[in-house]
Amino acid sequence: MPPAAPSISSLGIVTPRTAHFAAPLNLKSGAVLPAYDLIYETYGTLNADKSNAVLICHALSGNHHVAGLHAAADKNPGWWDNLIGPGKPVDTNRFFVIGVNNLGGCHGSTGPASINPATGQAYGSGFPLVTVEDWVDSHARLADMLGISCFAAIIGGSLGGMQVLQWSIAYPQRVRHCLAIASAPKLTAQNIAFNDVARQAILSDPDFHGGNYYAHDTYPRRGLRLARMLGHITYLSDDVMGSKFGRILRAGAFNYGYDVEFEIESYLRYQGDKFAGSFDANTYLLMTKALDYFDPTQHRPELGLSAALKPAVADFLVISFTTDWRFAPERSREIVQALLDNERNVSYAEIASNHGHDAFLMPDPHYHALIRAYMERITV
Amino acid sequence: MPPAAPSISSLGIVTPRTAHFAAPLNLKSGAVLPAYDLIYETYGTLNADKSNAVLICHALSGNHHVAGLHAAADKNPGWWDNLIGPGKPVDTNRFFVIGVNNLGGCHGSTGPASINPATGQAYGSGFPLVTVEDWVDSHARLADMLGISCFAAIIGGSLGGMQVLQWSIAYPQRVRHCLAIASAPKLTAQNIAFNDVARQAILSDPDFHGGNYYAHDTYPRRGLRLARMLGHITYLSDDVMGSKFGRILRAGAFNYGYDVEFEIESYLRYQGDKFAGSFDANTYLLMTKALDYFDPTQHRPELGLSAALKPAVADFLVISFTTDWRFAPERSREIVQALLDNERNVSYAEIASNHGHDAFLMPDPHYHALIRAYMERITV
Repeated sequence: MPPAAPSISSLGIVTPRTAHFAAPLNLKSGAVLPAYDLIYETYGTLNADKSNAVLICHALSGNHHVAGLHAAADKNPGWWDNLIGPGKPVDTNRFFVIGVNNLGGCHGSTGPASINPATGQAYGSGFPLVTVEDWVDSHARLADMLGISCFAAIIGGSLGGMQVLQWSIAYPQRVRHCLAIASAPKLTAQNIAFNDVARQAILSDPDFHGGNYYAHDTYPRRGLRLARMLGHITYLSDDVMGSKFGRILRAGAFNYGYDVEFEIESYLRYQGDKFAGSFDANTYLLMTKALDYFDPTQHRPELGLSAALKPAVADFLVISFTTDWRFAPERSREIVQALLDNERNVSYAEIASNHGHDAFLMPDPHYHALIRAYMERITV
Repeated sequence: MPPAAPSISSLGIVTPRTAHFAAPLNLKSGAVLPAYDLIYETYGTLNADKSNAVLICHALSGNHHVAGLHAAADKNPGWWDNLIGPGKPVDTNRFFVIGVNNLGGCHGSTGPASINPATGQAYGSGFPLVTVEDWVDSHARLADMLGISCFAAIIGGSLGGMQVLQWSIAYPQRVRHCLAIASAPKLTAQNIAFNDVARQAILSDPDFHGGNYYAHDTYPRRGLRLARMLGHITYLSDDVMGSKFGRILRAGAFNYGYDVEFEIESYLRYQGDKFAGSFDANTYLLMTKALDYFDPTQHRPELGLSAALKPAVADFLVISFTTDWRFAPERSREIVQALLDNERNVSYAEIASNHGHDAFLMPDPHYHALIRAYMERITV
């Protein structure tokens, strides 16, 4: 027998499961989802008193496949495999870690591309807009199903960090530690503006057909590609783009035309094409809306974030990255200040990184050491 | 007779003129433009020794209509009317000011929408890509035609500032004072990336038809609209977007759909629609390419900007704006440092403004006072 190829993930092969929820979910929009599926993965073992569960909340384009491989031949492990696994900062020898694809997603949880049982057709534009609040409610049901009354920790970056905040507000007794990374209490006008350009790219693509492209056998590939290209610019810092690509020309000289000339163009177009070939445009729209909507101060803006976070009793670790201009350190400091106003236990780190918003996905040693140290202190 | 309505421009009515150039122009790309027109406007009077001429170089979406009105009923004057006119910082009682639409433009100078005499059809994709160098060469011919051997000053913001730099390098004896505002010696990878997303929006619009949409009686309106929406985000600062729009909702509540919800969305879509209805998409493509290409250090990058600016003998005023992240103050400081390395006379100001890149078009009192003082010192 030949020796097994060395695994690129210390978790090895993992298998997703699907949970079906037959009870209707009342959404923040007023719509009701009569029933739905959530696809999820778990890593490690739930201990006897169920005190070692950790929930990972994903960001815009993430999913339930957080760590490990789906097949031995996989070239890439789950999206946060560098952080999660046996002996890793979020150590699956100690913790029972759960990844779940959000409602509205396109990786197995019920979403716009799923069949609407009422019509026998894909939901398409009929899929209701879901919010961070709705996701947290639906994940609480998954926790119920798994018998987890309180998470040791809930961890999320970017849009995932917003879900972490929402857990601390909506289910304060169900989470002991909140790790909100590269996040913000709410988007700025500039953030919303970028999201709206991305949405308009999709919505105005002639192949979008009002969201019902499944029925037309088309796909708004051009629009989604543009949305992703734009997104990518905002995930990276000016610094890292400069050092990785600068003004380097593909062919060494200008060609005075509109084909790729600069390396940065090649990179962006490649990223756009790759994403447009593997993600559902309706899900992209819906995820950006959830980002725009989240605002714990919405109903009483005059009281500010401290009042909105008043229910939270969890301990917090808040982390930001110096060159992240999409979710800048100032935004994380707002969360920290609000928690301090409420006399909560909060640790804060601003990690020097030139990777921009994407830094939260990178294996920076300082960043990972911080999470490791924090997680090691959690009793299970 | 009813009293005349008070003019919104102190210059009153101005009339563009068109200059025809029958001699071929050799372009940097290697292409040759056999003949071309430049549309231009002038304000004030050229003095006897022709020492009071000032050239204004426009940016991406600008044109020759820099100041004054085209008709008494005009609601808006030229794009830099707040700066230029009798008694204004660039005082047309002293200076003879020239505005000219760049080659490739869509406001009267020869461009992609013009008829190619060789075919009798619009140039479309057949219009050659032009560069900052080509523009400066073509404007030098306009100066020849007007009998101006040396400009008192050449002024430009953004892409216009690049033209100012190029004048100082290519025609050092033809300009005494260079005013480079909100500019950069060359674009960064991030700048190029934003331009490429804008271009891809246009190029991938099914109505683009490879640039020959004139012949198809279509127009890539969707693509140009997206390009402009994106551009607008980068012209404004996060600060000014926050203070002007914040998270204000149009209808006071979420509608949980993809119609306009936030005021910032309404603003951006309006700007995109307005622009897409009045600008030529091929011109937009070409102008962004000229931005990407400009790099005085291109042929000898190892020698740096100081070497590239060695030919320049003009005095310089360089101005940047604190919240301009598209052409950040650091980029202006590179120009200043290179000029100082060459022991040139250079004044530099970094104006505190929350208007981002757009600040160069705004009537900030400190900014205008600086230009006024600088221009008053110029002998004519």
